[in-house]
Amino acid sequence: MFTPWPIGFVSTPYKEASDVPKGLGASHEAEGVITILPDFELGLTDIEGFSHLIVLWEFDRSQHFELLGTPPSDNRKHGVFATRSPRRPNPIGLTVVELRRRQNAELHVCGVDMLDGTPILDIKPYLSSIPVASLRRGWLAEAEARANGNATVS
Amino acid sequence: MFTPWPIGFVSTPYKEASDVPKGLGASHEAEGVITILPDFELGLTDIEGFSHLIVLWEFDRSQHFELLGTPPSDNRKHGVFATRSPRRPNPIGLTVVELRRRQNAELHVCGVDMLDGTPILDIKPYLSSIPVASLRRGWLAEAEARANGNATVS
Repeated sequence: MFTPWPIGFVSTPYKEASDVPKGLGASHEAEGVITILPDFELGLTDIEGFSHLIVLWEFDRSQHFELLGTPPSDNRKHGVFATRSPRRPNPIGLTVVELRRRQNAELHVCGVDMLDGTPILDIKPYLSSIPVASLRRGWLAEAEARANGNATVS
Repeated sequence: MFTPWPIGFVSTPYKEASDVPKGLGASHEAEGVITILPDFELGLTDIEGFSHLIVLWEFDRSQHFELLGTPPSDNRKHGVFATRSPRRPNPIGLTVVELRRRQNAELHVCGVDMLDGTPILDIKPYLSSIPVASLRRGWLAEAEARANGNATVS
């Protein structure tokens, strides 16, 4: 397979994993700056036109993986591929951010949830959405319903 | 950085890059099967509850990268991070698929655009959408408008 390398790094308000808002109803409004390395800056051409970007990054402070784990949004275990756990076989994180402005190699964005200094692997334009009405959100919807007291005891 | 490894492989109807529908109005309704390797099957626990999945995969038949390129949906060059080009610094592809059913280690999905046999890196649940009304789609919206004859000549 390929050998990953950083295309840049993100600065965020979060120094430790415990600083990142997690769990049901967590807000992701934090601002951050993605700085692309000079070798890759030309690849940002025309990115200003997109309101939202998909950012792929490395969970660089996560070690090992766990196939079953208990996410912060539930007290039950779920498979790693049904969660956003950092303890994944390939430690790749994904965050959709809103692009506020670009200043040369710097992307000023809103909605970061990475740790400060996280290496960035890729950026892709966010092009289309699945309509909310056609989304089913599995255990997460069930955990929300239980938290809201709307679920029957199972 | 980490060393990527496949968690599984996808079978699709596309043997060659030229077989994959591309460009404006391309339809992505093709069916495929993602088969997860036995070592990782436990990580699929509870994935059945999600209607849509984000699949990360390797552009394993793409070589080198190109910071500026002309995508199939336009006749103008754009930066690689403003396109879904396979010629990326880290050759990671992203596809949102609809999960039709799971059969043990097999995920039967709709909406594949990978080549047959593509290695899968990660699967994440699709949890929320950016409302279409708040999306700006930059050069792609402009290319669509030009293709439809709605744009003034610039």
